[in-house]
Amino acid sequence: MKFSVSGALSYEVRSAATFILNIHALRTPAQAVLEETFSVDPYCKSEELSSYGENRYVRFEVTKPAYLNINYHAVIDTSFKQTAGDLLTDIPVIQLDTKVLPYFFPSRYCQSDKLFRFAHNKFGKITNAFEKVMALTDWIHDNVEYLSGSTTSQTSAYDTVTEQAGVCRDFAHLGIALCRALDIPARYFTGYAYQLNPPDFHACFEAFIGHDWVIFDATKLVPLNGLVKIATGRDAADAAIATIFGDVNCTFISASCQLADTSFEPFYYDSNNPYGLTYL
Amino acid sequence: MKFSVSGALSYEVRSAATFILNIHALRTPAQAVLEETFSVDPYCKSEELSSYGENRYVRFEVTKPAYLNINYHAVIDTSFKQTAGDLLTDIPVIQLDTKVLPYFFPSRYCQSDKLFRFAHNKFGKITNAFEKVMALTDWIHDNVEYLSGSTTSQTSAYDTVTEQAGVCRDFAHLGIALCRALDIPARYFTGYAYQLNPPDFHACFEAFIGHDWVIFDATKLVPLNGLVKIATGRDAADAAIATIFGDVNCTFISASCQLADTSFEPFYYDSNNPYGLTYL
Amino acid sequence: MKFSVSGALSYEVRSAATFILNIHALRTPAQAVLEETFSVDPYCKSEELSSYGENRYVRFEVTKPAYLNINYHAVIDTSFKQTAGDLLTDIPVIQLDTKVLPYFFPSRYCQSDKLFRFAHNKFGKITNAFEKVMALTDWIHDNVEYLSGSTTSQTSAYDTVTEQAGVCRDFAHLGIALCRALDIPARYFTGYAYQLNPPDFHACFEAFIGHDWVIFDATKLVPLNGLVKIATGRDAADAAIATIFGDVNCTFISASCQLADTSFEPFYYDSNNPYGLTYL
Amino acid sequence: MKFSVSGALSYEVRSAATFILNIHALRTPAQAVLEETFSVDPYCKSEELSSYGENRYVRFEVTKPAYLNINYHAVIDTSFKQTAGDLLTDIPVIQLDTKVLPYFFPSRYCQSDKLFRFAHNKFGKITNAFEKVMALTDWIHDNVEYLSGSTTSQTSAYDTVTEQAGVCRDFAHLGIALCRALDIPARYFTGYAYQLNPPDFHACFEAFIGHDWVIFDATKLVPLNGLVKIATGRDAADAAIATIFGDVNCTFISASCQLADTSFEPFYYDSNNPYGLTYL
Repeated sequence: MKFSVSGALSYEVRSAATFILNIHALRTPAQAVLEETFSVDPYCKSEELSSYGENRYVRFEVTKPAYLNINYHAVIDTSFKQTAGDLLTDIPVIQLDTKVLPYFFPSRYCQSDKLFRFAHNKFGKITNAFEKVMALTDWIHDNVEYLSGSTTSQTSAYDTVTEQAGVCRDFAHLGIALCRALDIPARYFTGYAYQLNPPDFHACFEAFIGHDWVIFDATKLVPLNGLVKIATGRDAADAAIATIFGDVNCTFISASCQLADTSFEPFYYDSNNPYGLTYL
Repeated sequence: MKFSVSGALSYEVRSAATFILNIHALRTPAQAVLEETFSVDPYCKSEELSSYGENRYVRFEVTKPAYLNINYHAVIDTSFKQTAGDLLTDIPVIQLDTKVLPYFFPSRYCQSDKLFRFAHNKFGKITNAFEKVMALTDWIHDNVEYLSGSTTSQTSAYDTVTEQAGVCRDFAHLGIALCRALDIPARYFTGYAYQLNPPDFHACFEAFIGHDWVIFDATKLVPLNGLVKIATGRDAADAAIATIFGDVNCTFISASCQLADTSFEPFYYDSNNPYGLTYL
Repeated sequence: MKFSVSGALSYEVRSAATFILNIHALRTPAQAVLEETFSVDPYCKSEELSSYGENRYVRFEVTKPAYLNINYHAVIDTSFKQTAGDLLTDIPVIQLDTKVLPYFFPSRYCQSDKLFRFAHNKFGKITNAFEKVMALTDWIHDNVEYLSGSTTSQTSAYDTVTEQAGVCRDFAHLGIALCRALDIPARYFTGYAYQLNPPDFHACFEAFIGHDWVIFDATKLVPLNGLVKIATGRDAADAAIATIFGDVNCTFISASCQLADTSFEPFYYDSNNPYGLTYL
Repeated sequence: MKFSVSGALSYEVRSAATFILNIHALRTPAQAVLEETFSVDPYCKSEELSSYGENRYVRFEVTKPAYLNINYHAVIDTSFKQTAGDLLTDIPVIQLDTKVLPYFFPSRYCQSDKLFRFAHNKFGKITNAFEKVMALTDWIHDNVEYLSGSTTSQTSAYDTVTEQAGVCRDFAHLGIALCRALDIPARYFTGYAYQLNPPDFHACFEAFIGHDWVIFDATKLVPLNGLVKIATGRDAADAAIATIFGDVNCTFISASCQLADTSFEPFYYDSNNPYGLTYL
């Protein structure tokens, strides 16, 4: 599936500052970057950091005050793997690839250690892992209100489970925390999302079941097959759109994702016909 | 410097369970493992997980209820690098090795994002990075009471900065959070510690300054040159002595570190003669 | 109904200290104190503070280090009002007695302002106030595990709603917070409780519905008609058994409640035959 | 001293709603209300609730959707007591008027129980109570940044002590929490404030020392002798400008305080000439 994606960020830079951006679409065996342009205006020499994990961080320095405009545009060809729900089982810890271990542990915004009883009381009796994560995703969707401006950058899963309002980031954090509380590795996923309305960067999460990272989105705002992956991480602390060192004020942010193909059949999970999607 | 270290753990295992232990001394260019024995009684086949980071996780499965005794013993030859304090400066973010980036971000027990103003108000004016971290280490030591049993596994730096009581783990978390709030990468360090009284596993932290991970210990309970490194991580979530999946109760835990050399000159940081130590 | 109640407290007093105890059974039109003895050994002159609210605080000073033994014993004749559930409706705020207003507001351990959406999502559709409070009491009972030692004096309703473990105090705080989040005034109730096993001081809560303070106990550990009221307050901060100023360590605490009558028919709420109980 | 004070509030009332306002200047022996007008437009019959404490709550009901404008205007003659700092000592708990007891206890926004060590480490050695509260007021002023919009209605003293930013309400809560942690009763104070820029409702706090409620203001934004008292309470939960039951959106809020006298000599605390002020 081909998508044309764009991201635009503007900043008022008040002092020398260093930026680490994470808005480039990932290059993976299943996600080809067909075209790509990235610009910083006024021009700054930027460097892509490839050595840390797989995310495509871009780093650059602004040496004096400026009004900065950043633009990213790419055409992406994505594909994904579809797996029948009954194959998406828990992997015994003893068999887990050690790369997955960090995604068991609690993190800044996903305090799974505090949600243990809640998660087990609510979802502990479901045996199939895919059904279990679908059930917790449904619970989040049914109980948490999507409400712009209701949360801040400090809001965590522990808040959201009780306060029951938030944005995509909060829905994702709660999904991750509940998975980890149930001994299912889970991680944060950021991307461009087709049919997201209003258009924006999107966040959802992946759970490691059936030997793959299967995508889930508790907001249910977009079809699961219309995502272009930017990054994964333990939570939003790892996969922020922008990490900035210096006195800088964000004045504008936008993202879009257009179909660059002839047809698109939206895909959502359906408990009557359970198939999980993996962006490899 | 040679040390003879031991760790012993006992568990009442009530159901099938999987253990991931992290009590083996690291093998590094500067830390040689001269002798090593590890046993689980009753016997379980264990596997050392080497692919995730550098920590030596050991994983094994207990298939039925048992009283489990785990023993580790090793003779270790450690060395470290000593660097003059004036060389231990902040590394500009633009020059940082990307492996260090994750240690900038807030984590489960180190909510540096919430300590930004506190850290800058208190330590922001100190220009040399080593002096800055020494100052915050001194502040923790002078203001936080070392008090066994005053905290739990959920206690975080955000609690400790106000409640001002804790154990080595809490002192380390607060040190890490304050460093990160000051844009200094920092990580959790667990190890065996010579002259720790009463003997136990120890935790302290490392700050990335002057291109090296320099060791700091806000408890000031042990000489900085008497440590044997077990693990590093973002915080205690990454570097737990034991991560256990199953219905298991810990009944005993002990650790010791004896000198296996003829002489030992204890080394503590001294602001009049500032040298930092790095366990490479 | 007559009960014979006792409370015993022992303290190691390490410095001069002032005690404010709140273990005396209330004297109300519906609760007569037939006999009563109170002693502090070694002897301290104590004063009953009657001017603040209706609770019977007793205050005394210990001027030097001592091992202190406090004993209270009383024979109490209680009665209560029974009201049919359909009469126990919400009172419109415009008609409420102003004495009830403070019990609308969030307090230290009952952060009703943070539970608004949770409470409305779960219980908002129930129209009858008595049924609403019964439903939330049932929810607490079914979801929160009664587990001695799982919480501390800092644990609040906001913790308990997610961590789902606690003791009677935590059950009461959560009940109060949920009522207030639903615009039902609620307050903390401490007392002696017949058939509590093991015997101890007990805490539950009252909701203001149908013009009366109706008793609820989410622990369901004791019959609702076997309570002897000690105090009410906004939460445990107001109605602590003991508030102590000085360096003092509690070494022993016990309470008991025996039937001093010939017969006792235990009474629990029953949704098929809904009657609410009020201790006037 | 005479002041002319005004308060104006506008609401979009979307459903039937009940309002409890607390914007009337108190009538006390030392604060005379010379003129007073209060209006709700469209007209609603309102009732002043006098039975709960001394605050002048006004309650009214809006029975259908409306755009509501509320105006309060009054001319007030205030006076206060001035006491030399060396007379403003701690009152031993054993001698305290029992009405003061509730102001020892932690409350929703003033978790003094969690600030015990912090307060004692920082201010515990100061013996005179007035100097102690001046010192903690200075500490708040020097360490917490006054920053509009940095906090929400959920922000508490436990947040502010670490996050170190807030508005007058947050400064007051932290002052109260620190006093209580030091065994000094303290309460929230709302009022109209002369020379507050920009004009608004103001909040500060009172500490009970030397047998009187002495006023303190950690914001240091206004002279201490230019206040007109509206209410006191345990914290902002008790003394909110408006408590509203129903679906209502606040669209406008303003307050002002003008001098209605010929001269005014601003008074601030001065450690070289220590005098405390009490609004009786």
